[in-house]
Amino acid sequence: MGDSDRDVMDEALDRNRAYARVHGRRDLAVRPRRALAIVTCMDSRLDVFAALGLAEGDAHVLRNAGGIVTDDTIRSLALSQRLLGTEAVMLIHHTDCGLERVTEEGFRAELARAAGAEPPFEIGAFSDVDDSVRRSIARVAASPFLPRRDRARGFVYDVTTGELREVRAEAVSSP
Amino acid sequence: MGDSDRDVMDEALDRNRAYARVHGRRDLAVRPRRALAIVTCMDSRLDVFAALGLAEGDAHVLRNAGGIVTDDTIRSLALSQRLLGTEAVMLIHHTDCGLERVTEEGFRAELARAAGAEPPFEIGAFSDVDDSVRRSIARVAASPFLPRRDRARGFVYDVTTGELREVRAEAVSSP
Repeated sequence: MGDSDRDVMDEALDRNRAYARVHGRRDLAVRPRRALAIVTCMDSRLDVFAALGLAEGDAHVLRNAGGIVTDDTIRSLALSQRLLGTEAVMLIHHTDCGLERVTEEGFRAELARAAGAEPPFEIGAFSDVDDSVRRSIARVAASPFLPRRDRARGFVYDVTTGELREVRAEAVSSP
Repeated sequence: MGDSDRDVMDEALDRNRAYARVHGRRDLAVRPRRALAIVTCMDSRLDVFAALGLAEGDAHVLRNAGGIVTDDTIRSLALSQRLLGTEAVMLIHHTDCGLERVTEEGFRAELARAAGAEPPFEIGAFSDVDDSVRRSIARVAASPFLPRRDRARGFVYDVTTGELREVRAEAVSSP
């Protein structure tokens, strides 16, 4: 793709103008209708609304590298639950994740070298996606900042087939 | 909605099975085709793929409460840029945000009281959405962990009309 800002962001703006014309006016409440929060990866191959059959107004969607539960996820879920009434948390990792392609130590060292400073965050690298999902469920279940920790379930999205598979709760195996 | 997990998450799974049937097999690369990362709010009224006319494989999508740039956003963008080749960052806040309905001190105190512990994160409350967008742009521009800090632009999504408005870069007004 081209090199200037014009290309990719202005193209998106053009498409947004076309979208707004068919969107029309909608007056939806800020509180999600299905009282659901979804936590998933930033991966470009997962279109959350389409893949879960969501409509505007249905559910909060949180996304970061990996879909792992971090302090920022807890912050967002605390607002989602306490302020905006969500009750259930759906955690979705996926196949072929970038975080399986790095190691915690390797990427941390690469960042530190490039930045000249230690990153103030865990990278979140993992080698077993099911274990990573279970760790994320456990972080939700253990957070004192969340009023609803009891309704978290974990899934893996297959980026090839578009299908979700549930990860059964069990002890996290050794790291 | 009902109270058991069956309701909301299993309904989503049912819709996902229907989606997977029409999805078929796709073999898309992990690197986003448009070399774009989008950072936006978890708000349920913003369907990012639809609103920006994105296809699977086009862009990373990062979402948290407010769409503000936090340490976790920097972590995700560092992986997005260094590992997966994105070059531009599109920051999108929106009208009628939950973070305009709380104050930093008020929600922090509420959380601390409920949890019996101080939250280890900034809440991210704001009263002027344009200023909040500019602060997020500034955080991208200032992060030593990002190789591409020069192509960040900020927008506000109107949840009623579905339209994006660009926030012009200028000095952040007093907090």
